[in-house]
Amino acid sequence: MDWKAMRRDAEAIFREAVSACMPEEAVRKALSGKQFPRPVILAAVGKAAWTMAKAAWEILGEEKISRGMAITKTGHSRGPIGTLEIREAPHPVLGQEAVDAAKELLRMVSGLTAEDTVVLLISGGGSALFESPLIPLEELADVNRQLLACGASIEEINTIRKRLSGVKGGRFAEACAPARVLAVILSDVLGNQPDVIASGPACPDRSTCAEALEIVSRYRLRLSGKALDCLQMETPKSLDNAEAILSGSVSELCRAAGGSAAKRGYRPILLTDCLSCQAKEAGSFFASIAKTQIAQGCPPTAIIAGGETVVKLTGKGLGGRCQELALAAAEGLSGLPALLLAAGSDGTDGPTDAAGGFADGRTAGIFQEKNVRAAEVLAENDAYHALDFVGNLLRTGPTGTNVNDLYLLLLRP
Amino acid sequence: MDWKAMRRDAEAIFREAVSACMPEEAVRKALSGKQFPRPVILAAVGKAAWTMAKAAWEILGEEKISRGMAITKTGHSRGPIGTLEIREAPHPVLGQEAVDAAKELLRMVSGLTAEDTVVLLISGGGSALFESPLIPLEELADVNRQLLACGASIEEINTIRKRLSGVKGGRFAEACAPARVLAVILSDVLGNQPDVIASGPACPDRSTCAEALEIVSRYRLRLSGKALDCLQMETPKSLDNAEAILSGSVSELCRAAGGSAAKRGYRPILLTDCLSCQAKEAGSFFASIAKTQIAQGCPPTAIIAGGETVVKLTGKGLGGRCQELALAAAEGLSGLPALLLAAGSDGTDGPTDAAGGFADGRTAGIFQEKNVRAAEVLAENDAYHALDFVGNLLRTGPTGTNVNDLYLLLLRP
Repeated sequence: MDWKAMRRDAEAIFREAVSACMPEEAVRKALSGKQFPRPVILAAVGKAAWTMAKAAWEILGEEKISRGMAITKTGHSRGPIGTLEIREAPHPVLGQEAVDAAKELLRMVSGLTAEDTVVLLISGGGSALFESPLIPLEELADVNRQLLACGASIEEINTIRKRLSGVKGGRFAEACAPARVLAVILSDVLGNQPDVIASGPACPDRSTCAEALEIVSRYRLRLSGKALDCLQMETPKSLDNAEAILSGSVSELCRAAGGSAAKRGYRPILLTDCLSCQAKEAGSFFASIAKTQIAQGCPPTAIIAGGETVVKLTGKGLGGRCQELALAAAEGLSGLPALLLAAGSDGTDGPTDAAGGFADGRTAGIFQEKNVRAAEVLAENDAYHALDFVGNLLRTGPTGTNVNDLYLLLLRP
Repeated sequence: MDWKAMRRDAEAIFREAVSACMPEEAVRKALSGKQFPRPVILAAVGKAAWTMAKAAWEILGEEKISRGMAITKTGHSRGPIGTLEIREAPHPVLGQEAVDAAKELLRMVSGLTAEDTVVLLISGGGSALFESPLIPLEELADVNRQLLACGASIEEINTIRKRLSGVKGGRFAEACAPARVLAVILSDVLGNQPDVIASGPACPDRSTCAEALEIVSRYRLRLSGKALDCLQMETPKSLDNAEAILSGSVSELCRAAGGSAAKRGYRPILLTDCLSCQAKEAGSFFASIAKTQIAQGCPPTAIIAGGETVVKLTGKGLGGRCQELALAAAEGLSGLPALLLAAGSDGTDGPTDAAGGFADGRTAGIFQEKNVRAAEVLAENDAYHALDFVGNLLRTGPTGTNVNDLYLLLLRP
């Protein structure tokens, strides 16, 4: 068994999959070959806004862009991009900087004609980085606090928030009309619903005013008259002028991993791209799959999953969901010609310097030799130290994109 | 969407899979066409001993059986079988009845020749139902109590127990020598290791005396001189006279489910036959698989898994692992043309009258209408009442076999 080769394969597959989901690549795929009647207005919002705007500037070229703005998280700008305005704003808490930038951007897209196009580049974090509240900022913060405290679901929270915003829930596209809006979305949300990512500034909203008022009464929210007025203004239910392209998402991460695995001689099987259960239970599940597939004499196989599992905190150690998942698989993989890599596409897993971790058929044995008890480590949520101790961490540094995690199970019977 | 047809399919697949794993069927498959030089001695031990012995009696016929005994759990005998001796003993705690029966059976297989064959039919529960302790019964009970209290692993416990027994760890086959032993095993243990099922009376033992003594010192067990002597008598490391046939196991349950699903127009995919993670996390994992496979436009598909998940008790409700798994999948399956059935092959799931439960694309909506909150129900471990309320329990009554659980995910895009 060439364990090193298998680990090299896993790392290479992860890196190639991540490369296919870089913001530049997403913008390239979405804009390549696109023709526009007149130079476009470029608007980029989110944590990858600078990178996406830079890519668009290079693809379209100066002559095809009339003006534009990128609004990103403080510290995420890497310098000027042609004539674009670059704004930074705090994240995750909405700040005045974001509000000022949005106001300026709304001015930039006002008075356009049906011949105009707004290219809107959306990435994760857009909810806090791109906002034009219809009520005072302090009042909005108070409503948010009430919503979080009362136990409302994320859907319910969004139903309220969209109605208190001049850009969320399709209202930015509405503000651009009659100009066309081409939204290019880099998704960090499982399920990739375009109306959820960055609160859907260019997507019709499915929620209704009636639902919003019901939420207010259900949770006894205390709102001003102005806010209640806002809740009764309907969000756009269709947007003839807007088109959304999802380019760069965990689905693409998985597809690219499949292509890369096939190139290396593994039969790729995409299991799921929306895994969201507990990390350590998922690790056990993957190991069970490995055992049976190998017992059945499968060919070299890459079982691929994407998503974002969750960690249940029971201890005070250091780790992340990917590291827990890998560690939890170690026992079940023991003795099998199999390797599991779990890693975050952003290169960060939990509050650690690792992107994720590995477990293979040897790991449990090495743990035993070195007196590491996986069950106890998991109870302490201390996967980082255990995996580091046996050389099973993957460190890539920040990758520059964020499309959830890749879980890659390689089988080489 | 014909939901009723999908549920009918799921139930039929479950029933056919269970039928293929009935004790009678397991014995039939293993003994059909087998020739023996002389009439055999028939020994059956375990909870399915009576049923297996009855089947063997019918397959081989009176003239091919010289004598024999079936030892089963109190209340599990259903009358005489030809000239066989039928014994009942308590389970799960070892009782004097089992010890007396084993002594008698050992007498029955003593003095045999190389021309003789002992057909040994093994099923779950055999550890307590078939025992011939080398130390007094009270002392054995005390050792067991110490082993359970000190936190020893199940492997460590078995290493000790096999050495204190005259039949476990291959010693029954040793006692039969030079006669041949043909063991037919109905497995209720994941992984189907023949040396674990009923403590492996006809299987070579992999553990060693040195390991046994290490366990004594690690956990500071208090043992008599006689018991310590026993720990230093090696168990058989190879058994030239014994052959084990695994016939009837969760693997077969899954294979049969695959065949039945294919007959009904579903492409069968056997995911794993050794699932052992937390029930509700497995439910979420299955729902994630359903979502992605359907989004990718899969043909009608049956994703099949077998195993025995575990339930984490956090509440005081009524339920079982299969019911929890199904309930936990409901939200993720919402709106999908998919159905998940989770059910125990023995027809019992937890301390309930149900074999398991269903969830399909409609279930979450029905819960919402009826104000059932799945997350709260799961926190209370009360899946039984929630599923019963919406008509999503499967009730089969005891099936007469026990080869773990079937988890069946049907997709009909």
